[in-house]
Amino acid sequence: MSEELRSLLWTGSSLRVLDQVRLPFEWAWIECTSYRDVHDTIKNMNVRGAPAIGVAAAYGMALAAREAMNQPDPAQFVRDAAEFLKSARPTAVNLTWAVNRCLTEGAPDLGRDAEAVAAELTEFAGTMAHDDEERNLALSAFGADLFEDGDTVMTICNTGALATYRYGTAFGCINAAFQRGTHISVIALETRPYLQGARLTALELVHAGIPFRLVTDGMAGFAMANGMVSKVIVGADRIAANGDFANKIGTYQLAVLARYHGIPFYTAAPMSSFDFRLSSGAQIPVEERDENEVLCFAGQRVAAEGAHAWNPSFDVTPNELLTGIVTDRGIFRHPFGKWE
Amino acid sequence: MSEELRSLLWTGSSLRVLDQVRLPFEWAWIECTSYRDVHDTIKNMNVRGAPAIGVAAAYGMALAAREAMNQPDPAQFVRDAAEFLKSARPTAVNLTWAVNRCLTEGAPDLGRDAEAVAAELTEFAGTMAHDDEERNLALSAFGADLFEDGDTVMTICNTGALATYRYGTAFGCINAAFQRGTHISVIALETRPYLQGARLTALELVHAGIPFRLVTDGMAGFAMANGMVSKVIVGADRIAANGDFANKIGTYQLAVLARYHGIPFYTAAPMSSFDFRLSSGAQIPVEERDENEVLCFAGQRVAAEGAHAWNPSFDVTPNELLTGIVTDRGIFRHPFGKWE
Repeated sequence: MSEELRSLLWTGSSLRVLDQVRLPFEWAWIECTSYRDVHDTIKNMNVRGAPAIGVAAAYGMALAAREAMNQPDPAQFVRDAAEFLKSARPTAVNLTWAVNRCLTEGAPDLGRDAEAVAAELTEFAGTMAHDDEERNLALSAFGADLFEDGDTVMTICNTGALATYRYGTAFGCINAAFQRGTHISVIALETRPYLQGARLTALELVHAGIPFRLVTDGMAGFAMANGMVSKVIVGADRIAANGDFANKIGTYQLAVLARYHGIPFYTAAPMSSFDFRLSSGAQIPVEERDENEVLCFAGQRVAAEGAHAWNPSFDVTPNELLTGIVTDRGIFRHPFGKWE
Repeated sequence: MSEELRSLLWTGSSLRVLDQVRLPFEWAWIECTSYRDVHDTIKNMNVRGAPAIGVAAAYGMALAAREAMNQPDPAQFVRDAAEFLKSARPTAVNLTWAVNRCLTEGAPDLGRDAEAVAAELTEFAGTMAHDDEERNLALSAFGADLFEDGDTVMTICNTGALATYRYGTAFGCINAAFQRGTHISVIALETRPYLQGARLTALELVHAGIPFRLVTDGMAGFAMANGMVSKVIVGADRIAANGDFANKIGTYQLAVLARYHGIPFYTAAPMSSFDFRLSSGAQIPVEERDENEVLCFAGQRVAAEGAHAWNPSFDVTPNELLTGIVTDRGIFRHPFGKWE
């Protein structure tokens, strides 16, 4: 296998973000030297995927603490940076979770010497990156048990190494099964409008050597009706206390289609994607992005002049459509809500 | 309203085909002076939509009869041309139906004087074009009754004037309701991989002045879950005797989603789209097209190198998911199979 695919690289003084908007044909790193740079790469989806966003934000906090050393009120500067980072995207809870952990665990006393705070937050970002690796390895091992020889697994969006600090979530489960020698293949949805399936998941599947075919999002149901799909596994951007979860737009209808065809449907996410403050998915904020993402492709208009679009970036799937939730603590099954 | 949108124009000696691959930004006509030209425009989807394909093929037969006048065996030449035209695309029954009607009704005696046969087939193609207009007007009037003030109607692919000789089928029903003054709006699926929704239906909706929003194919279920869709109406490329029908890929899962959300789901097609020789949809051949249609977006490769795709152009929806079939003879409801 060639070099590992990486979404983020900490240089010691800056965060290098692989520009996923330009993948798979251009490999370019964006050098973030300030927390504002990190905010922008999250907002513009250069880095995406809930776990990767969380780690990027933690490094954003480390950069903020370094910048704060030259400020009249370093503590306030870091607190303001935290709010700004959290505002980059609304749906993935890992972003808020990561930034809050930086403040409560990474540097609980911002009033201390600014240099010490910067060192603490830099170290803590590394810890969070390492934790993400560990969580994804653990959940991938649990999830790999779901698959058996002959399975064809359908997935949406990208949930691999590129969506996390390393290894991936739903893709991690598929890949772990394949690396163990389980004979499985994949049907990947291209995932409009951003085409994370065609651009990123296909890249990771080729990289891992897993046999697969790409389909458009409208082909999922017909593939199921033809008996081509034995299991579905997807990621999650936020999971409410009752098991309802937000994920990439198109996930909800995939869950309905899986139920209709009697196909097991799983989501895979680290415990950091749970938001126990929310009793149900109705409370998850769903980001709506610019309509031009639907109306255009690669900067080129494809929709007729005068057309407008609706562009929710995520949808919410109710827990009753879920067969199970794969986490780093094991696989939860109905009834959800007992997380230990 | 500006000039009417037309898919086909007979000049008296050639068939002008509006190149729908290049719409909505380039308006170019392809001049077909031979039946082979017509075959190619059907195969390459410059003209698409089951009823439009039928009329184009009838004009292809007229051109074949003209070319036959210079051939040693004009009758055999026309019969060979008929087979070649029918081979252009497999799923829409209107193609076979139209070509066969040319032979059985348009020019039942090919052994006659070749010039007379050419005149007969040219006149017959005009009759078929006119019949398509009449059928679509009739079915649109029936279908318009389905809609009421406040309805938001979801549709897939393109079923308007561009998909027919004139007026459209499913789009014709929506448009007829709107022109009558019914306050409705539309949610149009962009319909990957060919983007007939974004490119063609959006164009027709803007042209007709009907309020609408475009969505990606993966947003249909979430729109339904949010209460944004009150009815779904789609076209049909072939309807079996039991009411099962083939239509653009994505239709089947839309029908499953509509059923899950309790939303009425209709197909609209002229009687010429029925194939009573087939007892069920299992017998409908489903065209698979080149994988590059999925791997590319608007002519530009988007999928990672090494990726392969599955590209069924149609799917088959079982009759039990249908609320009704809108035809030029009225609206058929369960149980299907009593067509008069």
